[in-house]
Amino acid sequence: MSEEKKIRVGILGASGYTGADLVRILVSHPNVEIALLTAERKAGLPLAEVFPHFVGYDLPDMIGLEDVEWPAVELDVVFCALPHATSQEVIKGLLHATGHSLLDEIIVETAGDLASDIPNEVKIIDLSADFRLRNTDTYAEWYGREHQATNIQPRAVYGLPEAYRDDIKSAYLVACPGCYPTAALLALLPVLQAGVVSHEDIIIDAKSGATGAGRSLKEQNLFVEVAEAMHPYAVGHHRHMPEIEQELSVVADSDVRISFTPHLVPMNRGELETIYVKTCDGNKASDIKKILEEKYADEPFVTILKGNNMPATRMVRGSNNCVINVFDDRLEGRVIIVSAIDNLVKGSSGQAIQNMNLMMGLGETVGLTQAPMFP
Amino acid sequence: MSEEKKIRVGILGASGYTGADLVRILVSHPNVEIALLTAERKAGLPLAEVFPHFVGYDLPDMIGLEDVEWPAVELDVVFCALPHATSQEVIKGLLHATGHSLLDEIIVETAGDLASDIPNEVKIIDLSADFRLRNTDTYAEWYGREHQATNIQPRAVYGLPEAYRDDIKSAYLVACPGCYPTAALLALLPVLQAGVVSHEDIIIDAKSGATGAGRSLKEQNLFVEVAEAMHPYAVGHHRHMPEIEQELSVVADSDVRISFTPHLVPMNRGELETIYVKTCDGNKASDIKKILEEKYADEPFVTILKGNNMPATRMVRGSNNCVINVFDDRLEGRVIIVSAIDNLVKGSSGQAIQNMNLMMGLGETVGLTQAPMFP
Amino acid sequence: MSEEKKIRVGILGASGYTGADLVRILVSHPNVEIALLTAERKAGLPLAEVFPHFVGYDLPDMIGLEDVEWPAVELDVVFCALPHATSQEVIKGLLHATGHSLLDEIIVETAGDLASDIPNEVKIIDLSADFRLRNTDTYAEWYGREHQATNIQPRAVYGLPEAYRDDIKSAYLVACPGCYPTAALLALLPVLQAGVVSHEDIIIDAKSGATGAGRSLKEQNLFVEVAEAMHPYAVGHHRHMPEIEQELSVVADSDVRISFTPHLVPMNRGELETIYVKTCDGNKASDIKKILEEKYADEPFVTILKGNNMPATRMVRGSNNCVINVFDDRLEGRVIIVSAIDNLVKGSSGQAIQNMNLMMGLGETVGLTQAPMFP
Amino acid sequence: MSEEKKIRVGILGASGYTGADLVRILVSHPNVEIALLTAERKAGLPLAEVFPHFVGYDLPDMIGLEDVEWPAVELDVVFCALPHATSQEVIKGLLHATGHSLLDEIIVETAGDLASDIPNEVKIIDLSADFRLRNTDTYAEWYGREHQATNIQPRAVYGLPEAYRDDIKSAYLVACPGCYPTAALLALLPVLQAGVVSHEDIIIDAKSGATGAGRSLKEQNLFVEVAEAMHPYAVGHHRHMPEIEQELSVVADSDVRISFTPHLVPMNRGELETIYVKTCDGNKASDIKKILEEKYADEPFVTILKGNNMPATRMVRGSNNCVINVFDDRLEGRVIIVSAIDNLVKGSSGQAIQNMNLMMGLGETVGLTQAPMFP
Repeated sequence: MSEEKKIRVGILGASGYTGADLVRILVSHPNVEIALLTAERKAGLPLAEVFPHFVGYDLPDMIGLEDVEWPAVELDVVFCALPHATSQEVIKGLLHATGHSLLDEIIVETAGDLASDIPNEVKIIDLSADFRLRNTDTYAEWYGREHQATNIQPRAVYGLPEAYRDDIKSAYLVACPGCYPTAALLALLPVLQAGVVSHEDIIIDAKSGATGAGRSLKEQNLFVEVAEAMHPYAVGHHRHMPEIEQELSVVADSDVRISFTPHLVPMNRGELETIYVKTCDGNKASDIKKILEEKYADEPFVTILKGNNMPATRMVRGSNNCVINVFDDRLEGRVIIVSAIDNLVKGSSGQAIQNMNLMMGLGETVGLTQAPMFP
Repeated sequence: MSEEKKIRVGILGASGYTGADLVRILVSHPNVEIALLTAERKAGLPLAEVFPHFVGYDLPDMIGLEDVEWPAVELDVVFCALPHATSQEVIKGLLHATGHSLLDEIIVETAGDLASDIPNEVKIIDLSADFRLRNTDTYAEWYGREHQATNIQPRAVYGLPEAYRDDIKSAYLVACPGCYPTAALLALLPVLQAGVVSHEDIIIDAKSGATGAGRSLKEQNLFVEVAEAMHPYAVGHHRHMPEIEQELSVVADSDVRISFTPHLVPMNRGELETIYVKTCDGNKASDIKKILEEKYADEPFVTILKGNNMPATRMVRGSNNCVINVFDDRLEGRVIIVSAIDNLVKGSSGQAIQNMNLMMGLGETVGLTQAPMFP
Repeated sequence: MSEEKKIRVGILGASGYTGADLVRILVSHPNVEIALLTAERKAGLPLAEVFPHFVGYDLPDMIGLEDVEWPAVELDVVFCALPHATSQEVIKGLLHATGHSLLDEIIVETAGDLASDIPNEVKIIDLSADFRLRNTDTYAEWYGREHQATNIQPRAVYGLPEAYRDDIKSAYLVACPGCYPTAALLALLPVLQAGVVSHEDIIIDAKSGATGAGRSLKEQNLFVEVAEAMHPYAVGHHRHMPEIEQELSVVADSDVRISFTPHLVPMNRGELETIYVKTCDGNKASDIKKILEEKYADEPFVTILKGNNMPATRMVRGSNNCVINVFDDRLEGRVIIVSAIDNLVKGSSGQAIQNMNLMMGLGETVGLTQAPMFP
Repeated sequence: MSEEKKIRVGILGASGYTGADLVRILVSHPNVEIALLTAERKAGLPLAEVFPHFVGYDLPDMIGLEDVEWPAVELDVVFCALPHATSQEVIKGLLHATGHSLLDEIIVETAGDLASDIPNEVKIIDLSADFRLRNTDTYAEWYGREHQATNIQPRAVYGLPEAYRDDIKSAYLVACPGCYPTAALLALLPVLQAGVVSHEDIIIDAKSGATGAGRSLKEQNLFVEVAEAMHPYAVGHHRHMPEIEQELSVVADSDVRISFTPHLVPMNRGELETIYVKTCDGNKASDIKKILEEKYADEPFVTILKGNNMPATRMVRGSNNCVINVFDDRLEGRVIIVSAIDNLVKGSSGQAIQNMNLMMGLGETVGLTQAPMFP
């Protein structure tokens, strides 16, 4: 891609934290021009009105979704940072509005090399949960409503580059993983695939900063409620569970069920998962670690720590990195895998941009090389 | 006990956070007079020099341990809030200095009703780990040095009132449980005793505020390192493990081994444990919960929460309370028990005072009825 | 007052932070029985539903204000922790509903010794701003609406015990000071009264924790917005300004105008004011300090720190204390007075209870002797 | 400058927070190669041992200062992030070790166009206080020791680009301003220069995050001491005072004295100053603001906010930006200027790199365009 012609990018739902972090990273991305920002209640305002840290940045004003002139805006990439359920409708509408061949093809069921036939069609990167679950019945069960775009769902690629890089490269619709699934899957996929840990009895104890709850006005998100405190939530029924299970089941080639318990921690960014697994055939932490080291040897954003160095959220703050290490448990035949990411970056906006780079034929790390910010 | 004559209390190691919280609670205790405060480097200073929030409180200046005139100071109770290893030596010395019959008896191996024979001897409440482990070889293994008071150890009572109330009442030496063991044992002892969960495969994922690390000058304890961050530590080898295992093994009547992983959370006070257990005989969360409800029905400081109410550290901040609830796991045959305490109160100073109340024949809750401080 | 008969207390607006802190302190108050809790949206719920830290405490369920049966509930004291403007209406209604002679007297304009004539009438302690400003035109100007109880206003006593102790003792309606005015006035009243600092050019730079903003659902109160950040607000037009000016003007016997700028700090509790004043007649910090020391020598809740010890919010957390110190400025002829309180205690609920103690003839410090909670 | 040949940079004192933030920014700087990192106690270790967030970054191991082979290492730029007092000695030694003509010239007192004569000599950017004060007697007074490089001092340029851009471009030794002076001077220099505010009675109330205290092991820097608390420090005698006065005096052309009081706030990064000044000739906030707007119209890193938008530290976190606004005070004839920076970036490392860019003939903003990180 020539540097002269920048990729025209739109962000739907720019007034949330995910939208803000997309903008934060994209304003430094050398190949990108932010051409569209939408918001609902804040439509009509400059982004700096809702995120004052963007004062002085040259960005388009936010407009309402209904005011976007879809073909005319000539976007190359749309990031959809909308709430669950909304996303389906909006993406369906967007495909219709742009006369997207992705939609046609679904309807007429004709295969073809999309990439060569319709090179200029918009590519969609959805950050909601709406296209993550392949089985739309599972979606309905966990999200409490029928899926509204069941014909589009099969064309969505699960946007974990370390697992689906090639598929992402040729995709028109990528469903970015949830933050918790990202940290869990990077730690578990290779070891389940290698068959060195049991499919049963996988316990994921997850901890997240408050940005994970979004910018919605709920009492439980107030500073006073979160500061100097911590607690679990959604014990036994968090919506990221089926997503983790779906992907683990693929590599394990069997139905995997997990225990997953998230906790809210008084910090803004960061997500850490402490994963308790049983090993097979007498495998130790060192064996598990070797598998991860080999898998991620050439991955730009995943680091397996040396020795007993401890993954910590401060090691990845603001960056697209994931750090992982493996420890022998005191219980014989068990190991503990610890995985840390920044929930807003590798867990959301950064990974979305990593996907964009792949979909647009750019270097995978372009615009994502910022060092973590500690302190 | 008559209100005219107050209990004369000494706190050895008053300049640490545990010492400070002892003072905080004791200054409002109606039956107590703080008669002695010791410190090492800060000897000679008023307590308000090292803890300015005590300005205006009428407290004795801190003196060096070596300057205490043991019989003359006429203490009824000594709280020993010294570092591990130091405690053994100091308590041994204190027994010698006071000509304590506890020591004599150990040496001459003569049993007898201590409580009636020597009613006025000092009672010792140790907040260190030095007398928690009954097996002094286990102590040596985990603390990296030989136990220096092996003859005193057998006379120490493990100071968890909910488990050893009667023994504590007649004890001269109480070893207060560690903070992590307190939260774990209150949740697990009744269910292991009832035989409704497996002894194998108990996984405790623990989270603690920064006061747990004490006031020592280490880089990892700096505000900048702890704030906006979290991480596990001592994975697979934390010293509270053998203590939890010791007590679980007693009620299970077999050698119990656990998985225990603590995490540091950016808050001052509070400890939360998420405990993953397998149930026996098809027991569900509701069955486990019923056992806990019955066990703790009359306990003043332990509350089993109703419905799906979630234990949170902010519910117990500054109080001697423990809140517990039980949830069905998504994994068949598993439940999740969540237990929260204030690590400095029920996990340390508050429990020590609860023990003092029992040892001195006072009402168990006297001086410990402060409501939790939220926000 | 006999200990047998407890004071029956009602808290109107129990579901806010101020209400919660009233309950926290009152449950340990030996002379009080909490007989009524009201809430609006949360009416019908137990308090522990909105403040889970009260689980296990024996408290009446919250009811709607409109469901209170006023004379029948037989309250001795009502704490009114309602929003500004609402308070006026509610207190006016309450006086009517109880046939309160305070109201009659206002209407018929007959003076009399209320305390002796109607000893059993309810006493009202208002924590809102509604009766703080003596001039109801000033109220209208700063609060943007006409005062709705102009005939009651003259009977309200400004509830700063260190300034109006005797008036409070015989009052039926006390208007508790705002949190910022409390810290400011304790520092400034004695020195303005003594005439040792200039009335001009008083600059108060104030910093407060997030509980000061209450529990209302505003984006700016979310954890993510407040944590790791700070900023001023309401520069030049904060509503606590006229209140501070009113009281300073009384002691200065002239119209005092101040500069007052509050800042939001990422902590829950605590308020600190750095006050810059010009001295008269060459007075130094030591002269100013001497005046404060003399004034507060016998005050139970105000401490003038020794030497250069620095007031810090952690010295008063959770307590009704105020700590103050005075420093020479680098600018000739200027001193800096620093004053710290817990905004929810001495700045609100604690001071309200201090007022209650005075109004009910109890010892002023009863129930308020909890030591500050650090850490 | 050709992009092929990168600038070889050394960081002396890489194990502190300032060093870490230099590395964070420089690893993304397109024209820089980090060729040398030194540390004292941590010499011999990879940087990732002391700052684990740099794991995976290709950086030289830290070596001891005494092991640097000065001419051989062929540095173009040295950042000196050492403690005060140490810096003087080290820079003097470095000049000698490299046979730096800057030193020669000082000794022989011959003027000359350094830039043309010795184009390849190392340029030194000092982040300590050692060369900030032009009067070495003032240095001795405030830092409690004689200046050890009085002959070098006159050649140091005060590294505030917005004030000394041209001097910096041709300097060999730049003394970066302190963090507090940076925020204060950006707000005050233009208005003092314009003569629109009084030189008397300038009051600066400053608030800083905990990184300002560095990584030193002091009790007051522990998480537990800083969290949930705030307090002023160094009232009346902070060492940044003479530095602010020095620069204000230059533009005011008279001896300016200020009142300056810093406060510690429980956050990592960020510095906010609330500055109270008297205006001359009836100038209002709008007049003051206009002067600032004109001055900074083309400055890349300083933004005067529109309307009443409030400077907040979260608007500049992690960026080299400064945001300023001006408000009318309630006191007639007074205005309040609020200025916010990230103390580690514009207040330290970022400004140092801005200086490097100028000294090396690069674009001033290269490597410094990262958007602020909120949340």
